[in-house]
Amino acid sequence: MNKEEALEIVKPHLTQHRYEHTIGVVDTAIDLAERFNADTHKAMLAAVFHDYAKFRAKEEMQKIILKEDLGEELLEYGSELWHAPVGAYLVESEVGIKDDEILQAIRSHTSGRIGMQLLEKIIFLADYIEPGRHFPGVEEVRETAEENLDEAVKQAIINTITFLMKRNLPVYPETLHTYNEIASQQRRSKS
Amino acid sequence: MNKEEALEIVKPHLTQHRYEHTIGVVDTAIDLAERFNADTHKAMLAAVFHDYAKFRAKEEMQKIILKEDLGEELLEYGSELWHAPVGAYLVESEVGIKDDEILQAIRSHTSGRIGMQLLEKIIFLADYIEPGRHFPGVEEVRETAEENLDEAVKQAIINTITFLMKRNLPVYPETLHTYNEIASQQRRSKS
Repeated sequence: MNKEEALEIVKPHLTQHRYEHTIGVVDTAIDLAERFNADTHKAMLAAVFHDYAKFRAKEEMQKIILKEDLGEELLEYGSELWHAPVGAYLVESEVGIKDDEILQAIRSHTSGRIGMQLLEKIIFLADYIEPGRHFPGVEEVRETAEENLDEAVKQAIINTITFLMKRNLPVYPETLHTYNEIASQQRRSKS
Repeated sequence: MNKEEALEIVKPHLTQHRYEHTIGVVDTAIDLAERFNADTHKAMLAAVFHDYAKFRAKEEMQKIILKEDLGEELLEYGSELWHAPVGAYLVESEVGIKDDEILQAIRSHTSGRIGMQLLEKIIFLADYIEPGRHFPGVEEVRETAEENLDEAVKQAIINTITFLMKRNLPVYPETLHTYNEIASQQRRSKS
């Protein structure tokens, strides 16, 4: 499936605004994949479909999370998280993409995950820094992403956790675990 | 045991600086206990002994954590956390204090805990805002503590998590869980 075919499939599932965001994530993910030696075709496909489930009804997402055993504890946290694992499931079952790396990158793109692989980090970060994103701290993360993928992912996570806590919103523990893992690896590599 | 007797027992276990900090925590904890209707005698005792284990050797604390099953996962996080559960154990076994509320307040005073009770919150907060503490954000937490114990504990946790993440240090998941619990209770009580 090439980019045009993939975008054709995802377009009806997104608002115009979210479609433009998706285009930004695709371009950014391909750039990051080239920079950090990942598979650019997989990066393109994961980026195109990362928000595939974004506009499904909450009730549908809840049902899928429970029926497909995607992690019941997700339901205790913000519904913002749900479209990522539900998206991975629907991209496989409705679109027919079977590649585990692509599906995993869609699955973890909002929360992060302990043990994130290269493609997951690229999609997580591309979603955060694509050119349509404008919020405090994003420019610093863009600059870091020029050189250090892990540090950029970690900065994005720190910004997100800080943002959520300031607004009294729930923080998904796996996101903190992802921070702890990267920070621990960085401390070890410096010592 | 009155305050003078308790301070006499703890003094040889602390540096002069940490002893002065302890006096500050005691005064603050008694104030908070009066304000929020907790047992002032228990607050005094928990405050006097909250840092009882602070200057034990890391090796001794590691051994106690493993032998007494105080939570092996603590060892993966900063040693700053260890003196709290080890202190609760030693205050019981060496000093002879058996009161569960006091021991629990000592145990959770650094990390927080899901389901913190009134005395635990008071000691956690007194440790953070006692007059000897000077760091960004502490004055705001002191003001909040005049009126709202939960909100003050939550602010202290947010400041601590933010501080640790900025310095690439590990964040103990239970501390995030404590934030999530208080924030969730606050969201429910507003809805």
